[in-house]
Amino acid sequence: MADKVLLLKDASTRIRINSIKATEASKSGHPTSCSSIAEVMAVLFLDEMKYLPLDPRNPSNDRFVLSKGHAAPALYAAWVEAGLLKEAELLNLRKIDCDLEGHPTPRLNFVDVGTGSLGQGLSNAAGMAYVGKNIDKASYRVYCIIGDGESAEGSIWEAMAFASYYKLDNLVAIFDVNRLGQSQPTILEHDIDTYKRRAEAFGFYAIAVDGHDVSALLDAFKEARSVKNQPVALILKTYKGFDFPEISDKENWHGKPLGAHAAKVLEHLESKLQKPSTLGVLKPPAPVIDCNPLELIGTLKMPSPPPYQIGQKVATREAYGRALERLGTANSRVIGLDGDTKNSTFSIYLRDARPDQFIECFIAEQNLVGVAIGAATRQRTVPFVSTFAAFLSRAYDQIRMGAISQTHCNFAGSHVGVSIGEDGPSQMALEDLAMFRAIRGSTVFYPSDAVSCERAVELAANTEGICFIRTGRPAAPVIYGPNEHFAIGQGKICLTACPGGKDHVTVVAAGVTLFEAFKAAEELKKECVNLRIIDPFTVKPIDAELIAKSVRDTEGRVLTVEDHAPEGGLSEAVALALGEKQVPFKLKVLAILEVPRSGKPDELLAKYRINAQAICEEVRKLMKA
Amino acid sequence: MADKVLLLKDASTRIRINSIKATEASKSGHPTSCSSIAEVMAVLFLDEMKYLPLDPRNPSNDRFVLSKGHAAPALYAAWVEAGLLKEAELLNLRKIDCDLEGHPTPRLNFVDVGTGSLGQGLSNAAGMAYVGKNIDKASYRVYCIIGDGESAEGSIWEAMAFASYYKLDNLVAIFDVNRLGQSQPTILEHDIDTYKRRAEAFGFYAIAVDGHDVSALLDAFKEARSVKNQPVALILKTYKGFDFPEISDKENWHGKPLGAHAAKVLEHLESKLQKPSTLGVLKPPAPVIDCNPLELIGTLKMPSPPPYQIGQKVATREAYGRALERLGTANSRVIGLDGDTKNSTFSIYLRDARPDQFIECFIAEQNLVGVAIGAATRQRTVPFVSTFAAFLSRAYDQIRMGAISQTHCNFAGSHVGVSIGEDGPSQMALEDLAMFRAIRGSTVFYPSDAVSCERAVELAANTEGICFIRTGRPAAPVIYGPNEHFAIGQGKICLTACPGGKDHVTVVAAGVTLFEAFKAAEELKKECVNLRIIDPFTVKPIDAELIAKSVRDTEGRVLTVEDHAPEGGLSEAVALALGEKQVPFKLKVLAILEVPRSGKPDELLAKYRINAQAICEEVRKLMKA
Repeated sequence: MADKVLLLKDASTRIRINSIKATEASKSGHPTSCSSIAEVMAVLFLDEMKYLPLDPRNPSNDRFVLSKGHAAPALYAAWVEAGLLKEAELLNLRKIDCDLEGHPTPRLNFVDVGTGSLGQGLSNAAGMAYVGKNIDKASYRVYCIIGDGESAEGSIWEAMAFASYYKLDNLVAIFDVNRLGQSQPTILEHDIDTYKRRAEAFGFYAIAVDGHDVSALLDAFKEARSVKNQPVALILKTYKGFDFPEISDKENWHGKPLGAHAAKVLEHLESKLQKPSTLGVLKPPAPVIDCNPLELIGTLKMPSPPPYQIGQKVATREAYGRALERLGTANSRVIGLDGDTKNSTFSIYLRDARPDQFIECFIAEQNLVGVAIGAATRQRTVPFVSTFAAFLSRAYDQIRMGAISQTHCNFAGSHVGVSIGEDGPSQMALEDLAMFRAIRGSTVFYPSDAVSCERAVELAANTEGICFIRTGRPAAPVIYGPNEHFAIGQGKICLTACPGGKDHVTVVAAGVTLFEAFKAAEELKKECVNLRIIDPFTVKPIDAELIAKSVRDTEGRVLTVEDHAPEGGLSEAVALALGEKQVPFKLKVLAILEVPRSGKPDELLAKYRINAQAICEEVRKLMKA
Repeated sequence: MADKVLLLKDASTRIRINSIKATEASKSGHPTSCSSIAEVMAVLFLDEMKYLPLDPRNPSNDRFVLSKGHAAPALYAAWVEAGLLKEAELLNLRKIDCDLEGHPTPRLNFVDVGTGSLGQGLSNAAGMAYVGKNIDKASYRVYCIIGDGESAEGSIWEAMAFASYYKLDNLVAIFDVNRLGQSQPTILEHDIDTYKRRAEAFGFYAIAVDGHDVSALLDAFKEARSVKNQPVALILKTYKGFDFPEISDKENWHGKPLGAHAAKVLEHLESKLQKPSTLGVLKPPAPVIDCNPLELIGTLKMPSPPPYQIGQKVATREAYGRALERLGTANSRVIGLDGDTKNSTFSIYLRDARPDQFIECFIAEQNLVGVAIGAATRQRTVPFVSTFAAFLSRAYDQIRMGAISQTHCNFAGSHVGVSIGEDGPSQMALEDLAMFRAIRGSTVFYPSDAVSCERAVELAANTEGICFIRTGRPAAPVIYGPNEHFAIGQGKICLTACPGGKDHVTVVAAGVTLFEAFKAAEELKKECVNLRIIDPFTVKPIDAELIAKSVRDTEGRVLTVEDHAPEGGLSEAVALALGEKQVPFKLKVLAILEVPRSGKPDELLAKYRINAQAICEEVRKLMKA
């Protein structure tokens, strides 16, 4: 034991040394933030965690999330200790041809989720722990290191409440209380007692530890392992830049390499190494192998064609819930997560049919999304997150980080636009298309009827990257037969006078506005004006070919109409596609231009000019232009 | 006293009755959520709060925020008790021509902030309380009612930590613990002790009260008033649908009018009224008038022209900080708020020059934004919120609600795009233009040099609605003289061969890409290709006239280049503007198309093709097209 402590102390010192050397080489980075966690990293990676260091994504391995991602060099140095990385590689930190990035990303095979936007890691870790305990029913445990500065993020406390509610005793949240933030001391500085009381009040078993005492850390992890039906918080009292003479616990050392101080600090640290050549002697314990690898994406199928007939009236939100239930019943790793809106988003259908595949996350959307992203890691599950689309804006940073995490998580946002009616603007999503389209690698579905919505769910489940499905509140007629084929990036011509007649104006519409376009077409036909109506199905990618051809056929006349802001929405997607295709066009845009208000859906469609009448008016203008 | 209690009980009963009648009339709404707060609303509006009921926006009035905005009918009914609204008006709830919307908005003169997206009210209230205590130095107090379901939102705990750190003893947070959420019981149900412990751990003086006992509520508010240097939390044990026979404390009654049950419940409630005709007898106490009305927007001036010379190298983020300091030094109600990034966003210049005009909000961006929106109410201050633009995505829901709140809050997001370099994708904002452009009524500045950035700050301070200023990390040359005039929606032609020569391609670029365009122009000149380079200054509104004219002059050839996603960014803004202007155009888009990585800024501009070389290549393609 004494020898192990000695070796772990040396490993901690080497983590410090390597964090300094790496950040010196890159001339940027956060060595002092690495130093405060050197001991706990050594203990975690060389004694506490059970994993196969040369097979870091083995599903039976314990998981580790570095929520304070700016301490990445300490993580990389720990993997050197574990034997996966070569020490010399650390000197390529932050270089463009090296995956040792400034903050960890899953470009590295030992990273499950990207971190660096603070306060998100514990939700990801809680998602992994939930799946480990309840879905994989496996032995692996989950460890997450959280900075004290980032513990001011509310998302941490959402995750704490979630983890204790679900009794995640396979989860250890480690708070690195090093007292200093980026620009000044943290709110609580070294008030360890208050951290402990907060953690306890949020249902954790809390242990306060000297974070620079290897023996104390070993004891604390042992105690943590003995706790049942409760997650554990280790509150580490540490110092930022610990053991860096003249730097430790001092302000103005955040995010800076040591520069002129480096040589002296390195000399000090190297002189402390008691067994200088012990790298590789300590080995992490092997995990219990009780978890099989899974490859889900691309394998998930609906049991039968969508159960709808043309003309039947079904809200797309309800079709979403039904599709999720059907897909989940056929595939036990498809899960649903919701934020206490399941009776409105209809994810309740899955909860009722397959309660083990549903996670209620209560009114805490940031954690809802973070848990889902955690649940999706290593393809243990294919998650569908649902809530009102407006409230997904609450988790936009988590969704953005999800793209960096290479997640395959799916999102369904209901109650979009003014067509929800009386509840008013706080509940009306008008930004969700802009939000999800701007996410790198995303796919954005905007199904207009129940059949296409069911296909959107099936396609999303099998598509890599972030998928978003926009659903509406009002009941809408089914317009496609159950065997209609849908594909990403493939729109549908819903109405055309061709081949017999000539179309005069292309109208691109989706959801509630598609049906307004149909009504407008009826009216305009009386005036001998024919609309070609396109249902884009996906807004990203948009079917640029189909739209370009239609707009050419209609002599450049095109109208977009959407229950969303024009910015980043359908209108701009169409405008960009036509501009890039070099199709000359005359565009009229109908979209929501001001903050809407409460009222009846039809009244609001009229007031904000996205109804049939407004379409008729704009089409007439286009015909005169 | 006994009589007061009796009158308050009657008022509570009338609030229940009116909540039922209003939601029956609108056939939608949340009567059971109103019922749990009927007593506390009566006590607040008729006894505890000091205000002028017929002058609800008087700056000396106590403030009230209904964070659980779905209980709006109880709020409206309370204002009937206070004498501002007519009882009959309540029957117009949620109608399109009535401002009594489904959730409160400032279309009503007694509402300061829109609510309805849960968990945001306490941050708004804390902002008001901070300003009251530290800037107005006035007597008014701030009360906020929070639902128990929404207390799962992390933003509540961010606000709690903030309020206790700043010792806001003029703030009372009232938790309505009615046990039931929308779709199932809340996490903690009626575990009042745990609520109390959480509130205490977060630094509040907590009082548990029977929320349906008027006398106990009166005592609790009295106790709250005596607490110094600490905010107070009242934890009310209540029942959802209290005093609605057969409905009280039952599931499946969220968000539903009573329908067939209404008559019976109303009969029961009406039979309880002890003095049926007492409406108007109780009057709220008058406030101490110690606060002057302010009209700030439109009056704020820089003390002198921007202190920069052409050619000097200054990062726009630094110019932002300097401008904020200069504007704040000249105008004491201009305030800065930051989330522990002030030494990176340079808001530290204001903190150092005018510490009383700076609020450090630590790493809790949701609360940062919520506090700023609260601080902006009744024009008590003109706030500028700064952090990395990427982290403003953390508060997108708060920003969205800010538009509904009719806030005049300003945002500055720094460290945009891949040009930040080594820190990697988690720190790179690529969605911020999409995000802010989709906000209704917003203005989006993208200044490219220090002079235009200073003017953006001055214009933002004087512009209604949400303003966003996008700033960059790298130092950039000053290109405008100190007396250059800037206006919203007015771009600048930075380079043209006219009138002497002919321009071949219009390039629209901003920030780091504007300077890449200049380099490309040098190169292309050798090939006898002239670029017309446009700096848009604002991306919303974009200068459609100028761009359309330029694109016509360059025979439809246009290239956009931006350190942002194309979706919702500069590219789509330009495409939409040209489509609506009916200008035929051939567009090439350079933007960030994948999740970027760490590297040197120049390497990343090259890798993701937004540098001079990529511009040259695309211009050559346009010349051949």
